[in-house]
Amino acid sequence: MADQVKLFGVSESFFAVRVEVALRLKGVQFEYVEEDLYNKSPSLLKYNPVHKKIPVLLHNGNPLAESLVILEYIDETWKHNPIFPKDPYERARARFWAKFIDEKLFPVARKALVSKGEEEQREAIGETHEHLKTLESELKEKKFFGGESWGYLDIAAMFIIWLGIAQEALGVEFVPEEKFPRLHKWQQRLVDEDAVFKECVPREKLGAFFKARFGSSAASK
Amino acid sequence: MADQVKLFGVSESFFAVRVEVALRLKGVQFEYVEEDLYNKSPSLLKYNPVHKKIPVLLHNGNPLAESLVILEYIDETWKHNPIFPKDPYERARARFWAKFIDEKLFPVARKALVSKGEEEQREAIGETHEHLKTLESELKEKKFFGGESWGYLDIAAMFIIWLGIAQEALGVEFVPEEKFPRLHKWQQRLVDEDAVFKECVPREKLGAFFKARFGSSAASK
Repeated sequence: MADQVKLFGVSESFFAVRVEVALRLKGVQFEYVEEDLYNKSPSLLKYNPVHKKIPVLLHNGNPLAESLVILEYIDETWKHNPIFPKDPYERARARFWAKFIDEKLFPVARKALVSKGEEEQREAIGETHEHLKTLESELKEKKFFGGESWGYLDIAAMFIIWLGIAQEALGVEFVPEEKFPRLHKWQQRLVDEDAVFKECVPREKLGAFFKARFGSSAASK
Repeated sequence: MADQVKLFGVSESFFAVRVEVALRLKGVQFEYVEEDLYNKSPSLLKYNPVHKKIPVLLHNGNPLAESLVILEYIDETWKHNPIFPKDPYERARARFWAKFIDEKLFPVARKALVSKGEEEQREAIGETHEHLKTLESELKEKKFFGGESWGYLDIAAMFIIWLGIAQEALGVEFVPEEKFPRLHKWQQRLVDEDAVFKECVPREKLGAFFKARFGSSAASK
């Protein structure tokens, strides 16, 4: 019997797009279910009762949640086109930085995005830049975090591309090119050249989403 | 050349003890360096410049940080006595629950421990119990989270044993036995029977630590 794979996501969520990208890089066929976070489906609540969040991957009836956990599962289940480095130390470093993105970069960047006060926003943007500087130096002169092709950490780091789109939509310098030339080249490489990226990341829709959602916060001033 | 393994830790920290337990379960020889968090060593700052936190594992000169990341590395590097389940879905579930412990249980339990106000503490204890209830039902009737012997998720879940020790030291019902009979049996099994556990977890020292550190918070009233 063929694998039955279903992804519950929200197209604007980079957490969900992480899973979509990994499945497409592996060439795994799947059914995509768009969720409405203001009216979550009974399936989502059933399959992720602990967090009640997307993404959820349902594989042959087994539900999985948490995007980084799902990426590990995908790489262990469909072993071709590995997205993790082979070397245990490189794997550990990739996991370390993915955790850094979710636990350090994401919360402050989100604060910068939603903050209503200019002072608060300036501070959050300053912290965001600090964290991006750390990632910029981790990228070094490599084409991708994963080396010659994109892998787990690039997938995790797509959040930086979300910030770039928010920057264009709201006119706020989340990831200014002059400060982060390597991250910009990395981003541009995916945007210009990568078919999977183009298929998964709805850039125009995201720009409109940022405008509609955060246009009234300090970010738009 | 034999492996050179050094662990920078703090003996009261369950994050550090996680790594110690994994190394001992694998029978890996290592040198232990006790850190003073009020006066961090130049080595710690050098090896974990991003978070400046313990634990840090130094393996043949390569530094690693973040306890859960280190556990993955240990299991991939020394493959005997695996601490992860073999099945990808079981592995994903173990990772999911370890993340839950660090991101959900730990922050609220910590809040319960440090809160000065009784109302605030009661609320935080209530949330702690909610999360423990979830873990109690995940444990089911198994001997260990990992099945017949302790593994990755048991190592991650040792925080619950820290809560039990804090309960004894401070007289606060963090993990009352009548509410969490399975977690209690699990804990008791490690405390009574497990040589590695006994070697790594300084229960008396921890009790004294909790009294000295949190004796003045609401936890002691």
